[in-house]
Amino acid sequence: MKAEIIAVGTELLLGQITNTNARFISGRLAEAGIDVYYHTVVGDNPERLSQSIKLAQQRADILIFSGGLGPTKDDLTKQTIAHELGCELVSNEEAMKTIEEYFDHVGKVMTENNKQQALVLKGSTVLPNRNGMAPGIAIGKADKQYILLPGPPHEMEPMFEHEAIPYLLGVYGKQDIISSKVLKLQGIGESELEVRLQSLLEKQTNPTIAPLASPGMVKLRITAKAKTEEEAQKLISPVEQEIRAIVGEFIYGVDDDTLASKTTELLLQNDWSISAAESLTSGMFMAELGSQPGIGNALKGGVVVYNKEMKIEQLGILSSLLDFHGVVSSECAEAMAESIKERCSTTIGISLTGAAGPEPHDGQPPGTVWIGIAIEGMKTASYKLQLSGSRNTNRMRSVQFALHYLIQMMREKKELKY
Amino acid sequence: MKAEIIAVGTELLLGQITNTNARFISGRLAEAGIDVYYHTVVGDNPERLSQSIKLAQQRADILIFSGGLGPTKDDLTKQTIAHELGCELVSNEEAMKTIEEYFDHVGKVMTENNKQQALVLKGSTVLPNRNGMAPGIAIGKADKQYILLPGPPHEMEPMFEHEAIPYLLGVYGKQDIISSKVLKLQGIGESELEVRLQSLLEKQTNPTIAPLASPGMVKLRITAKAKTEEEAQKLISPVEQEIRAIVGEFIYGVDDDTLASKTTELLLQNDWSISAAESLTSGMFMAELGSQPGIGNALKGGVVVYNKEMKIEQLGILSSLLDFHGVVSSECAEAMAESIKERCSTTIGISLTGAAGPEPHDGQPPGTVWIGIAIEGMKTASYKLQLSGSRNTNRMRSVQFALHYLIQMMREKKELKY
Repeated sequence: MKAEIIAVGTELLLGQITNTNARFISGRLAEAGIDVYYHTVVGDNPERLSQSIKLAQQRADILIFSGGLGPTKDDLTKQTIAHELGCELVSNEEAMKTIEEYFDHVGKVMTENNKQQALVLKGSTVLPNRNGMAPGIAIGKADKQYILLPGPPHEMEPMFEHEAIPYLLGVYGKQDIISSKVLKLQGIGESELEVRLQSLLEKQTNPTIAPLASPGMVKLRITAKAKTEEEAQKLISPVEQEIRAIVGEFIYGVDDDTLASKTTELLLQNDWSISAAESLTSGMFMAELGSQPGIGNALKGGVVVYNKEMKIEQLGILSSLLDFHGVVSSECAEAMAESIKERCSTTIGISLTGAAGPEPHDGQPPGTVWIGIAIEGMKTASYKLQLSGSRNTNRMRSVQFALHYLIQMMREKKELKY
Repeated sequence: MKAEIIAVGTELLLGQITNTNARFISGRLAEAGIDVYYHTVVGDNPERLSQSIKLAQQRADILIFSGGLGPTKDDLTKQTIAHELGCELVSNEEAMKTIEEYFDHVGKVMTENNKQQALVLKGSTVLPNRNGMAPGIAIGKADKQYILLPGPPHEMEPMFEHEAIPYLLGVYGKQDIISSKVLKLQGIGESELEVRLQSLLEKQTNPTIAPLASPGMVKLRITAKAKTEEEAQKLISPVEQEIRAIVGEFIYGVDDDTLASKTTELLLQNDWSISAAESLTSGMFMAELGSQPGIGNALKGGVVVYNKEMKIEQLGILSSLLDFHGVVSSECAEAMAESIKERCSTTIGISLTGAAGPEPHDGQPPGTVWIGIAIEGMKTASYKLQLSGSRNTNRMRSVQFALHYLIQMMREKKELKY
């Protein structure tokens, strides 16, 4: 079963709004086991909309439209589809009542053009609108299904979820479902990952494995097609195990996990407290961790020491150390981590110092970053990064790498503990 | 001149990501006076991509592709277009150098598949990638123009803005241009703004005025259509003056200005130094300021004091003050600001303390925030916010308001100075 999503609206073509409806509808269709091969966006123009309908009829079984059901002159979706299908438009009593009730409720007089919203294709199934006046429409013609949805996401989304999907499952009977599990990796590039998994990637058909890169991080999506969610999981889990056997050390979480959420989880589980001393990231690390609910029980705080003097005054780093090794050095990073751990009396002290760029800093090329991690009962460690992004990409990636190394050391500490 | 935007990527059809590129590209094309009649999204599938190319060739003069230029097997955009245009793919030296330099720089071994990223259409114009490895491509064939862009927005957007648009304007000569000026406001709501500007908003046709709300701030976009940039500016400037006459006190900048960039500008111009003490924002304020190039000359650093003990230990706030007024209070905010200014010996000390939510904090309802600002030679001031967003929205908005009040006080100080 193939579907095509046609969003109607000139504001989309002018770049005034983003077509988030296509994403929502696609996600739900995937879950329902219905393939989507194309998204189309077309303006409020009957000729071009007609062309798009004819084209979609050739390449899809299900045509899903969003937008153009409203009361204004440029809302022409219904009229154009009715014309294409040779269907009449008739006023729907239920819909008309909803509209009249709305105007009573807000105490306004209903203008004529609002009646247009109650028009539906003759013989169609009306999809009630929980959050607006224009109803949705579903109709089957010559072995194609047509679903018309309103444009505003808060009207479209519940309608699609609760009315359109059940309608389609009713028409086609239950399809195979598509289920995905996303593995989140840190510390390995997309291309290196693909090389390591090559043989696995090649032989996979169901489930499939797709690497997805996003700034400072790589994801692997395992997607299975099956009759039930349980079967899908049965297909996914052995493949996940194979992947973990090859690149397990880089996998820090799944699906909605983030490095910050995993870090927070580990801190709270083990009742560990943390403090940070930041130079190039000037607070980004603490801000990122601070975004996690409940972190207040673990994150005590820390300092931002942007220049050399501050490192000496606020952290008591020896100026001799800074003169000898420089502020962008393993020694400085470890001293910063140990000092902040001491001063805030926390289980863990972490530090970031480096050259964010674009200029070199203290003799180090832009993108050179040292991360120091001091953990109670463990040897203080430091990690060097050599980044190549813009100033702010480098700062963001430094925070992600710091969380990555922190998670690794916390896992080690757990081993030691138990 | 008609353009069609074709986004390539199965993850778009699975609803895993939103096609924000189409919106960005459409907006820029509108400003350049180039019409967009269709957006298309197609998966990583050569046959269907070929179909989409043939179709777009019939309905557009300019075909703009985003996505599928990366190193992995499912990146097939270049290969498919080369096939459709009967062009051969050749390795581009410049691009190859960029890739090799990247791997040298990060000290990793380049895997074979990365070389694929240096392939370009023979005879094409290469569009350099400022934030990634895969270059863009522009080529004219049989009175059509083809623009190939990478998928990641942080790579695509600057490339389209700085390389693709000038290329197209070069090919077609200047179209009727659409020029916009954005006024940035802080401290006034969108609806109040609309009320104040109502008469102005109604009578405007060219230029048009559009209020745009974004979390914690409001923008006004003035858009004029004209033959030349100069003519457009002539239309925009009197309207801007009218607006400034009505709501001037809320306008902190234009176009790409941010509260952080204006703050940095004022700090550097006046050779003022700043430090911060953050509680609920846990470093976000310093991180935001730290994102500004050159800020190192003004931002010395500061502390994050997440809990009461830290406020006492790290800032020497009297526990009696905290017991009497609480940590979410004018008194605490001002004491924090003065203490950090003292400890870092800076011109300015700023503090944020409050209840980010969702729970109340120290007896204060979620969203209650106090901002303290201590400036050399001025009376220390504090500002109360009562926010109603989620935990992280409240933290972000607190930072924006802190910058807003800081700018106002710095402007006052300047008055005093001169």
